Amino acid sequence: MINRMTEEKRKRNISEVNSLAYDDFIAIFGNVVEHCALCAAVVWGDRPFRNYGEMQSKFNEFIEQLPLSGKSGVLRLYPDLAGKLAQSNSLTSESTREHASAGLDKMTEEEREKMSKLNTKYREKFGFPFVICARENKKEAILFGLERRLNNSVEVEANTGTNEVKKICNLRLKDLVDEHSVAKL
Amino acid sequence: MINRMTEEKRKRNISEVNSLAYDDFIAIFGNVVEHCALCAAVVWGDRPFRNYGEMQSKFNEFIEQLPLSGKSGVLRLYPDLAGKLAQSNSLTSESTREHASAGLDKMTEEEREKMSKLNTKYREKFGFPFVICARENKKEAILFGLERRLNNSVEVEANTGTNEVKKICNLRLKDLVDEHSVAKL
Repeated sequence: MINRMTEEKRKRNISEVNSLAYDDFIAIFGNVVEHCALCAAVVWGDRPFRNYGEMQSKFNEFIEQLPLSGKSGVLRLYPDLAGKLAQSNSLTSESTREHASAGLDKMTEEEREKMSKLNTKYREKFGFPFVICARENKKEAILFGLERRLNNSVEVEANTGTNEVKKICNLRLKDLVDEHSVAKL
Repeated sequence: MINRMTEEKRKRNISEVNSLAYDDFIAIFGNVVEHCALCAAVVWGDRPFRNYGEMQSKFNEFIEQLPLSGKSGVLRLYPDLAGKLAQSNSLTSESTREHASAGLDKMTEEEREKMSKLNTKYREKFGFPFVICARENKKEAILFGLERRLNNSVEVEANTGTNEVKKICNLRLKDLVDEHSVAKL
């Protein structure tokens, strides 16, 4: 089996992706949906992919067709932003990078406290954590979004969160696969 | 967070299960479906459970409502019986125990070779590994079943494998939860 830590830094073209053995595919793509190797295990069955877009859409399709309980479950696999795991350096390598890109690793004590209170309130109301694509937002926008989204219904938030999961998945995939490559099938 | 390795040996009554924090619930039940913490993350949202049966049925329901691609994905998360992972002692603790209970850790060289060839043939035909509840079978019955099930269609095998996943899940759950306890709700 390949070593995920060293291999994940290299972008593959889609033909290389199509020729990966199952174990290697999971080692590379098993965390594009956080802690949910099932997504990659499902998408493996859809090879060969003609291009990046087709591969990405297969992840989206699987997540999208889950019932509300399944979407809520996927959201629960994500860590609280700037929460316990972040503070003890226990995030996955993907989440660690995403936190840094939003400036969540450089918050004032006041910001951290505010986020922690809002995260708790959100979890208590919805039964899953607040998920947002950190690479598309800065910490101020995240705090603002968290406060605003607290007013929504569970259904709206399960779907909004799921859309953020898809954005995160897309960016993680683009780190791993050359999005302009086309397969000769 | 509790330590899964020491805690998993103790059976909890259903009221204790109902009062577990999310992280502890996942640490304990995250592998009742092999490598698929999503199942436990989904079922966590269904608490409180009145009794063991209700909890178990929530796992079954989630697995059952997956599309064929999702069921195939779940099957792919299981290791080959007596395969590479077993031979390098890299199975999960649950799979290690299950292998031993069927006598799969004590096969002759001839039996191991036969199983390896049949496993490969099965994977090539169906795109997922042969899954069977090892605690309900001995190695001879497993070899026999593997040979017999090779004749089925993909649809039949995805569903047969899924039923085995549910049996394995049920036995793993019974190791963790007192099946006769009733919750006062």
